[in-house]
Amino acid sequence: MIHSMITRVRYAETDQMGVVHHGNYALYFEMARIEWLRQIGVSYKEMEESGVILPVVNMTTNYHYPLEYDDQITITTRLVKLPTASMVFHFEIFNENKKLCSSAEVTLVFLDHQSRKPMRCPVELFELIKTVAA
Amino acid sequence: MIHSMITRVRYAETDQMGVVHHGNYALYFEMARIEWLRQIGVSYKEMEESGVILPVVNMTTNYHYPLEYDDQITITTRLVKLPTASMVFHFEIFNENKKLCSSAEVTLVFLDHQSRKPMRCPVELFELIKTVAA
Amino acid sequence: MIHSMITRVRYAETDQMGVVHHGNYALYFEMARIEWLRQIGVSYKEMEESGVILPVVNMTTNYHYPLEYDDQITITTRLVKLPTASMVFHFEIFNENKKLCSSAEVTLVFLDHQSRKPMRCPVELFELIKTVAA
Amino acid sequence: MIHSMITRVRYAETDQMGVVHHGNYALYFEMARIEWLRQIGVSYKEMEESGVILPVVNMTTNYHYPLEYDDQITITTRLVKLPTASMVFHFEIFNENKKLCSSAEVTLVFLDHQSRKPMRCPVELFELIKTVAA
Repeated sequence: MIHSMITRVRYAETDQMGVVHHGNYALYFEMARIEWLRQIGVSYKEMEESGVILPVVNMTTNYHYPLEYDDQITITTRLVKLPTASMVFHFEIFNENKKLCSSAEVTLVFLDHQSRKPMRCPVELFELIKTVAA
Repeated sequence: MIHSMITRVRYAETDQMGVVHHGNYALYFEMARIEWLRQIGVSYKEMEESGVILPVVNMTTNYHYPLEYDDQITITTRLVKLPTASMVFHFEIFNENKKLCSSAEVTLVFLDHQSRKPMRCPVELFELIKTVAA
Repeated sequence: MIHSMITRVRYAETDQMGVVHHGNYALYFEMARIEWLRQIGVSYKEMEESGVILPVVNMTTNYHYPLEYDDQITITTRLVKLPTASMVFHFEIFNENKKLCSSAEVTLVFLDHQSRKPMRCPVELFELIKTVAA
Repeated sequence: MIHSMITRVRYAETDQMGVVHHGNYALYFEMARIEWLRQIGVSYKEMEESGVILPVVNMTTNYHYPLEYDDQITITTRLVKLPTASMVFHFEIFNENKKLCSSAEVTLVFLDHQSRKPMRCPVELFELIKTVAA
């Protein structure tokens, strides 16, 4: 399953080069994977409230072409493999002319919020993901 | 007591107008009042850990002259009145040419972190502030 | 004319108080007035490209009630008076329970991008605004 | 030459996990390489004004251990190889307990600001870097 969402570049996300600052791409990827989860029926907010957090442990971003203020961008999200103690997502960002502007891979780990100890992907989430991956 | 601190404008704080984005001034004022507290011997971090938080309830900012990337700016902090259930700070930002670029007033309230209920300024903090204000 | 837009609070917009950081409200108001302009037929992007910029000179924000991660918030935008050399907007933010969380007033000035000199509101923009205000 | 700088984590850089949001590490690395340049006698601001910009084309970040609000962090910067049409930096972030919290590699390319065309590292910069690398 490839999930795709559209958002618009905010003015504040640019810097004086006249394009989106590279640090802000992390925000786009974060929005996209939260919407990916929502689409398969999972609220990340509720997951956190239930005591499971998903911090990022690795992010690799390629910047192919600049994003500009007011661009309506499309972010695609794809899960790279079935989750274990970690989840790996692949993202792509396209501008209005369907040009590939960025691709990225982000690895997150499941942590118990209280103890900050690693844990495996919760069973219900794993089952949901297996269904959409099938 | 007027506290004064120096910091340098980060590239990421600019936007495509080529100057610091107006939303980032809030970060400068926040740094400045945390350093003001540190100077009178108070760690805001420890205050939060002890269960007292200080959210902003009003912020009024005047933008007189743009701040530029790489500017070494001076932020002055002055307490407007002795704290009660709230604290009111006045800030000014000067650029390297000593030009007044921004002035602001920020009101924060003391809240019990757990209950989110308003409370009065903790006694020890009040006494510390009275000393420097005398 | 009161314009209203809906957006969702991003995870990155929160801070360790567990609510949206006060500095990020500026981003919501900025999005809202750009959408207000778009609705009356004006692209702020094209306005900048034509050499007219609209920096903020005053922003007064009241924080009534915290915004939380994942909240779908409604931002209303209202022009306070017909534009002259400046524009004054009034904003309100409501959370999903229709609770008023923030109100703000923002003043922007028309500047010639090249010279950074103040100028009056461009005639075509003024006429468009008069129409919707009538 | 390994350059090292110290900065303090700002409150606004945290998120509701209670640690620094992963997107903000890009800002630390950016500050660090600008200070690295300053130390060898190069102002990135002047480089941009002379028409050469250095956008990021790849950033790979590993998050080993969380950074917390108010931590005084040390960021080390090392150039991976002599610059050609690109520059590659390696960064590490340590917290106050000298724990390695993050490591990253960032690749930037030299672009002519006007034409946005790639170019080789300016000769004077190359000579300066060769000296410190020797």
